[in-house]
Amino acid sequence: MTMNECPPSPSGATAAIPDRARAVHLVARPDGPLTTDAFRGVEVPVPDPGPGHVLVRTGHLGVAAVMRERMDLDGDLPVPPYALDEPMSGPAVGTVVASRAEAVPVGALVAYWGPWAEYAEVAVEAARVLDPALLPAPQYHLATANGATALHGVRDVAGVGRGDVVLVSGAAGGVGSLAGQIARRLGAARVIGTAGSAAKCRWLVDELGFDAAVDHHVDDLAGALREHAPDGVTVYLDLVGGAQFEAAVAVAATHARFAVGGALSTQQAGAPWPRFDTGAAIVKALAVRGFALVHAPQVLGEWPALFRRWLAEGMTFPHTSVDGGLPVLPDTLVALLAGHHRGHVSVRMA
Amino acid sequence: MTMNECPPSPSGATAAIPDRARAVHLVARPDGPLTTDAFRGVEVPVPDPGPGHVLVRTGHLGVAAVMRERMDLDGDLPVPPYALDEPMSGPAVGTVVASRAEAVPVGALVAYWGPWAEYAEVAVEAARVLDPALLPAPQYHLATANGATALHGVRDVAGVGRGDVVLVSGAAGGVGSLAGQIARRLGAARVIGTAGSAAKCRWLVDELGFDAAVDHHVDDLAGALREHAPDGVTVYLDLVGGAQFEAAVAVAATHARFAVGGALSTQQAGAPWPRFDTGAAIVKALAVRGFALVHAPQVLGEWPALFRRWLAEGMTFPHTSVDGGLPVLPDTLVALLAGHHRGHVSVRMA
Repeated sequence: MTMNECPPSPSGATAAIPDRARAVHLVARPDGPLTTDAFRGVEVPVPDPGPGHVLVRTGHLGVAAVMRERMDLDGDLPVPPYALDEPMSGPAVGTVVASRAEAVPVGALVAYWGPWAEYAEVAVEAARVLDPALLPAPQYHLATANGATALHGVRDVAGVGRGDVVLVSGAAGGVGSLAGQIARRLGAARVIGTAGSAAKCRWLVDELGFDAAVDHHVDDLAGALREHAPDGVTVYLDLVGGAQFEAAVAVAATHARFAVGGALSTQQAGAPWPRFDTGAAIVKALAVRGFALVHAPQVLGEWPALFRRWLAEGMTFPHTSVDGGLPVLPDTLVALLAGHHRGHVSVRMA
Repeated sequence: MTMNECPPSPSGATAAIPDRARAVHLVARPDGPLTTDAFRGVEVPVPDPGPGHVLVRTGHLGVAAVMRERMDLDGDLPVPPYALDEPMSGPAVGTVVASRAEAVPVGALVAYWGPWAEYAEVAVEAARVLDPALLPAPQYHLATANGATALHGVRDVAGVGRGDVVLVSGAAGGVGSLAGQIARRLGAARVIGTAGSAAKCRWLVDELGFDAAVDHHVDDLAGALREHAPDGVTVYLDLVGGAQFEAAVAVAATHARFAVGGALSTQQAGAPWPRFDTGAAIVKALAVRGFALVHAPQVLGEWPALFRRWLAEGMTFPHTSVDGGLPVLPDTLVALLAGHHRGHVSVRMA
């Protein structure tokens, strides 16, 4: 490798940069539920950082349900699909081990959109230098997109305020587990979640302070929700779509606001979009708004300080940090899509 | 009949009040498309008005698509379904022929929600005394609900303003034909309508000043709409639902606002609700709001003066006044639901 001379960092970041390292490629577009056959571990050269770039040793890689949709060519996302025979990518934190940019020195902890690879070359404009003292651990920084999505949906799109009865679908997920807690902090009178198992439902109530939680597999979802919201829900944060969207329309109160930020049930299963009872929307004067962070990127900048404050005030950050490095990434994503995880999920490099 | 003595009005309104008169009852709940078998002409006693009531000789009865849904027991409306073996009812104007309320004298022209009957007893609180000089003809007053619905949807719910590209479904109907013209007056850059025939589409463009109109029967509705709105529609006023709602999601611009005020295609056919591409809603940050006048009754009071001003400025009020009195009401409603009318439709009593 050729690069500017860098003094060894206190953490010894430059100590051992290999010539080649591991990465995980997407090698097939899944047709239906994801399996690990879609991925292949490869060995690739470790890049020399170009001018204005840094070389980062990957520390943690975040895993999220939205990745499944980016694997489809006709995915309905505001970002391009993942390319075949190239590394998957996602939110990452890591340590700069070589730098050709003065603003980001060797040893810095940075957040970036990174490849599923042990090393990444990152343009300085795309790297956020983190204050390691701001949040309790590096993987908390991986939750910035999840947290900003939850904040934007609950606060800006749904406008949750005092007295609202808030329903959050996918409440045990990375976004939903924060959204319910944010809704409470913004004054919601009642926070109800849906999740995919009785154990997750208990966890939402016992650990995250939801008032009630319903397993979305029940036969009569709308009926089950109505028991917990006899006067209807005034806000629905939709991270799932499908039958849960339809049930939410059925249990919505007059003038309810829907913030639609995810459609996991359709993304995963290739299922048809939910039916929208426009008659109920008319009679109830529902307001249904789709949202994505791409339309509100400033919220990403707001999140870390708010997160720090809320954590100090008792907010729970439910997360799982899976050990095992690159080889366990495919399994971790498959397990997440199958509903085997709670809260935010990331993989720690070896 | 016994009632307070009333001087004969200048129009001779009290001249000949019969003891019995005709009415039209709903006698069967239609299963599918409406036919005239659902109705029966009957003879009923002409009521004596009670204290605080007036007796009105029906002048004009308005006919509207929403009446079909009120015939179903499980109709999704904020008003009760029509009762069997009682008169149908709808917007009406007529002349007071007997009064037991000082505020509404014999001879007054009043608007009210009236039975399909030659005479109606109306509580004074439910009768609006009209200024015959305000609008060109009595049936213009029947369009108040249609006009207020169009105004509320276009102005308050969708927030149409300068530069908007507005799509109106059911544009040849009583609401849609006014909505397109209102959108133009509020600054829309482009107004596109859908209708059920090529002739109606030509009429929208040639007579009502729409920029373009598309027959919703075309094979690729979204494609046809896109030709007229290459950058997407920024506002969709939905009076129809169904496949047209789905096409509108497909051709919506980022941040488009949908005002959903009708679901005629589902009401009539008993068809399933449209599918809602929540993925597109997320990516495009769509805002979809249902609305009904029941949530904004004040707009009914705003409409007549605005209507008068806009008519003076060149707005067209497309309406058909069908002669023939009560016997032609069932046929007129069936024909309207089958798409055989344009604009507002009313029946003139014999």
